[in-house]
Amino acid sequence: MYTYLDKINSPADLKKLKPEQLPALAEEVRRFLLETVSTTGGHLGSNLGAVELTIALHYCFDSPQDKIVWDVGHQAYTHKILTGRRERFPTQRQYKGLSGFPKRCESEHDAFGVGHSSTSISAGLGMAVACDLEGTKNHAIAVIGDGSLTGGMAFEALNQAGHLKKNLVVVLNDNEMSISKNVGAFSSFISRKMTGRYFRDLKKEMQGLLRNIPAIGTDILHFARRAENSLKGFLTPGSLFEALGFDYLGPLDGHDLPQLVEVFNNISQLDGPLLVHVMTTKGKGYKPAEETPSKYHGVGVFDVATGKGAPKAGSKSYTDVFGETIVQLAEQDPKIVAITAAMPDGTGLNRFAERFPKRFFDVGIAEQHGMAFAAGLAADGFRPVTAIYSTFVQRAYDQVFHDICLQNLPVTIAMDRAGLVGDDGPTHHGVFDLSYLRHLPGMTLMAPKDENELRHMLKTAVYSGAPMAMRYPRGAGYGVEMDSELKSLEIGKGELLVEGNDVCIVAIGSTVYPALQAAEALKGRGISAGVINARFVKPLDANLILSAAGQTGRIVTVEENALQGGFGSAVLELLFDNGRQDVKIKRLGIPDHYVEHGSQAQLRKDLGIDAEGIAAAVEGFVKS
Amino acid sequence: MYTYLDKINSPADLKKLKPEQLPALAEEVRRFLLETVSTTGGHLGSNLGAVELTIALHYCFDSPQDKIVWDVGHQAYTHKILTGRRERFPTQRQYKGLSGFPKRCESEHDAFGVGHSSTSISAGLGMAVACDLEGTKNHAIAVIGDGSLTGGMAFEALNQAGHLKKNLVVVLNDNEMSISKNVGAFSSFISRKMTGRYFRDLKKEMQGLLRNIPAIGTDILHFARRAENSLKGFLTPGSLFEALGFDYLGPLDGHDLPQLVEVFNNISQLDGPLLVHVMTTKGKGYKPAEETPSKYHGVGVFDVATGKGAPKAGSKSYTDVFGETIVQLAEQDPKIVAITAAMPDGTGLNRFAERFPKRFFDVGIAEQHGMAFAAGLAADGFRPVTAIYSTFVQRAYDQVFHDICLQNLPVTIAMDRAGLVGDDGPTHHGVFDLSYLRHLPGMTLMAPKDENELRHMLKTAVYSGAPMAMRYPRGAGYGVEMDSELKSLEIGKGELLVEGNDVCIVAIGSTVYPALQAAEALKGRGISAGVINARFVKPLDANLILSAAGQTGRIVTVEENALQGGFGSAVLELLFDNGRQDVKIKRLGIPDHYVEHGSQAQLRKDLGIDAEGIAAAVEGFVKS
Ligand SMILES: [Mg+2]
Ligand SMILES: [Mg+2]
Repeated sequence: MYTYLDKINSPADLKKLKPEQLPALAEEVRRFLLETVSTTGGHLGSNLGAVELTIALHYCFDSPQDKIVWDVGHQAYTHKILTGRRERFPTQRQYKGLSGFPKRCESEHDAFGVGHSSTSISAGLGMAVACDLEGTKNHAIAVIGDGSLTGGMAFEALNQAGHLKKNLVVVLNDNEMSISKNVGAFSSFISRKMTGRYFRDLKKEMQGLLRNIPAIGTDILHFARRAENSLKGFLTPGSLFEALGFDYLGPLDGHDLPQLVEVFNNISQLDGPLLVHVMTTKGKGYKPAEETPSKYHGVGVFDVATGKGAPKAGSKSYTDVFGETIVQLAEQDPKIVAITAAMPDGTGLNRFAERFPKRFFDVGIAEQHGMAFAAGLAADGFRPVTAIYSTFVQRAYDQVFHDICLQNLPVTIAMDRAGLVGDDGPTHHGVFDLSYLRHLPGMTLMAPKDENELRHMLKTAVYSGAPMAMRYPRGAGYGVEMDSELKSLEIGKGELLVEGNDVCIVAIGSTVYPALQAAEALKGRGISAGVINARFVKPLDANLILSAAGQTGRIVTVEENALQGGFGSAVLELLFDNGRQDVKIKRLGIPDHYVEHGSQAQLRKDLGIDAEGIAAAVEGFVKS
Repeated sequence: MYTYLDKINSPADLKKLKPEQLPALAEEVRRFLLETVSTTGGHLGSNLGAVELTIALHYCFDSPQDKIVWDVGHQAYTHKILTGRRERFPTQRQYKGLSGFPKRCESEHDAFGVGHSSTSISAGLGMAVACDLEGTKNHAIAVIGDGSLTGGMAFEALNQAGHLKKNLVVVLNDNEMSISKNVGAFSSFISRKMTGRYFRDLKKEMQGLLRNIPAIGTDILHFARRAENSLKGFLTPGSLFEALGFDYLGPLDGHDLPQLVEVFNNISQLDGPLLVHVMTTKGKGYKPAEETPSKYHGVGVFDVATGKGAPKAGSKSYTDVFGETIVQLAEQDPKIVAITAAMPDGTGLNRFAERFPKRFFDVGIAEQHGMAFAAGLAADGFRPVTAIYSTFVQRAYDQVFHDICLQNLPVTIAMDRAGLVGDDGPTHHGVFDLSYLRHLPGMTLMAPKDENELRHMLKTAVYSGAPMAMRYPRGAGYGVEMDSELKSLEIGKGELLVEGNDVCIVAIGSTVYPALQAAEALKGRGISAGVINARFVKPLDANLILSAAGQTGRIVTVEENALQGGFGSAVLELLFDNGRQDVKIKRLGIPDHYVEHGSQAQLRKDLGIDAEGIAAAVEGFVKS
């Protein structure tokens, strides 16, 4: 089927091709990507954009002796295909199949596992230092997008790398956008274009300036200021990276394979830190993806010919409901402002951005800054809502502590994609938030049982006057009826949904409906199980839980979060602190290992936290 | 005593002075600082350096309408003195006295609380946006040191600020050093000096270049490359910040009050983001501090005339023992490398740096990068040890998860200053680490009972082949005898130190010795209390704890960590998961509120986790 691709099972096979055969290989890879990703879903645009770059890197460098580190990993499909995983590739992002991201345990060519942004220069620098200490001449290559450069960690790493002078090659894969449109001064600076007019103006200014250059020693600073003003428009990405200690090459056309091969072959002979600036087109070679790149960043199954995906079935997602509700609240309240970290679409804040552009802030891939920026707004009387995926709030743990909770500032942290996210796997599951936020004094932490309750919780949070975090799952809600009015919930009050005599299931967030189904199923097995929707992880509804504990003598907690230090652990603490160690407790949730990728339904089943799993666990517990 | 200072109880009083009186005020402030800090201890050097800068800011801006945000807060003493806290100033860092850092609850002039680094531009930008949305013309002013700029979060904030164009003034307080010598390419770039030769060379190159400037449209890129190469050495901090969207002013002499006042008066009339580069001298006006600034960054009580502090009494600190032990291990093993985030002295790694300069890495105030850099080294076969204060490891929580634990990479995280740190207060207490690290799958987490055990734990960690974190307290060890050989401890094994019949105290880390004292005291009260040194928080020594629980029926856990999700919570989980809810448990530790500053002894006493507190709690528990 594929003239070249079929024969490539390792970088060694790739090197057997002649340079002039590489463009044809690139076309084959692109066809293969479209054929497989259209049936599995996955990241499409960034992978189509990185085909030539990846071929050139593996053609010119020697993985695994040379270490190729992919930032985020959205763009590493070609890398997987060329490093022995072509045949398994159609299993990518499928249960027990290949991961959608580089992963050390999957291949020796995956030098470093990723999923989160802006780590590649740090890891690559570590590897470059390792090569140096070992006395080898190998290179570490960090491939990083322009969007990932907005993450401060990347800057921290550049800062040290420019100073250390090891064999680190940073490949800046610049498509002038991250997942959505790039933000920030740095990005517009990186993409600064050179035009004729620009140079004509520069020439004029410089000539005037040089005519008057002072004798050595006289008024140098004054001259410097004027020269600098004349030149400031001249500063280019190259001069910046040079100033930071890197040699700079570029910008190169990232789809021109002969040029890429020539440059990388040269580089593989060079020493010292080097930044190669490569311009690529997201979605390259597939019209629909080139035209609407943000739509084709991550895709589900779609039809290659038309570009159309399956119509979205079923209920509104939690994300949609969040996005609608914050707009609804903000219509009434000019103090509400919204903040995202490069995810206006993913968090549903795009509606807000459209409706209230002046109150909307996309900070870039910069969760740390985003939280402290929100704290600054809150300190001056605003009601900021930061919407960030649970797994990325981890990046801002210290800011949630230091800038928000410690100062008791009223910032609402809306954590989308909490719990098991499915196909993206362990880097993206948001299964620690209840554990890492619960111990911060001053924090209120909640999770809605459905999309209607989400709306009330958002209102509750925004008007609480204190730090509030709420978590809700990826995917569709239940299609429940929406209350006509938004209301503020009482802080720390759960609700008893079902009375039971034998046991009480205390559920939180996405586990409430499964718990209800379990209780229903248990009826048929002769077990009377109550169900509590806890709503709040902190503060717990002590009265409600203690009273249920007293009535039934048996509590089962269920959460889509780590069992260590999570919701169930909070219930344990509550019972013990209240001298109720007579109550029997079983905690269901995520045990002490990382959960791989797969559909949410499959993973929940595996972990025994779907309705059937809960029912079985409760039955066993009651009968034990 | 002070002609001017005695009359200043607010910025309004300051504004009554004539500009020419300000230098005399600065001298009085300096004298006052020396007199008080020499009796209380505190941060000296950075505060002496910021006297004129602070006076000029308060003289020209209108706090609290204008928002002054101090980065880290090491330099805000003059600010406190001028904003109504002069009389209380001698209580600073004392129990129930003023905080050593800006704190919102302490004064309306403390626009934002700090302690951790690199947050000021984010918070200031939030405030500038708030002013803009409110339609006021007020300014937000972020005062940030050159060291703090190495934190990636500061860059994230600059990136957005340059783009948003609000009334944010960033004052770069540049003393060419952070707490110790600055590192990284960015710092050497910021301090780039302009010399005559530099401009002569530039002139020559530019003239040649301009002669050949191409006609518009022809080979612009080729010209651009050559022009850039000629100019790259010309890039200055000013042009960089301009390129990022800031107006740039400077460098100014930070001790020239008339100039500072003139410039700040102008700035207070300007709009848009502006960076003012101010050069200051750490320790300015006090010879010993100017000459050895790192020694006078943070000081204890000292004699102003001689500069000499009280001799260090007592045993070696944990920090010293850590620093000696890692050198000892590294003598035998070239794979051991050490990483600090701008704290070579504070972490005791200065010895290592001296002995093994090539294996030592100071990454700047960049904990995130430091962890991922360590992970990169570990991925390629090295044994990295990162030494970071517990409170600052919070910054790298996501990297510990994503880059270290998820990949099971053998990085040792040595957390100094864990538990209650004393005078620095709530921003610096390291009282969450057991809670935020315990739930990460793959993590091993331990704490030594004394400085001798610390040595064995370090060896254990370095050779475990897996992610390991160890926490140890600020301050002196017990002066215990040191074992002659380092040994590897069995992972997950605690030790029974005292047998008891009535109750068993399960202690961890710094609470083990107090628990032993408590057990001794309890003997006299007729209570037989056992003591376990748990050593490991994860994995717990299940057999040991369950067996003690079985024998006595009563367990008291003691930790210098948050009770939510911490060590005691882990013991609860253990007992419950093993069906031992018959055992009575009491958990001692840090309750759900922030702990203010004060001596470690005082704070431990207040929280009931010193020997007497433990004894009293155990007695009450046994008799209940
Ligand atoms: Mg991009
Ligand atoms: Mg400094």
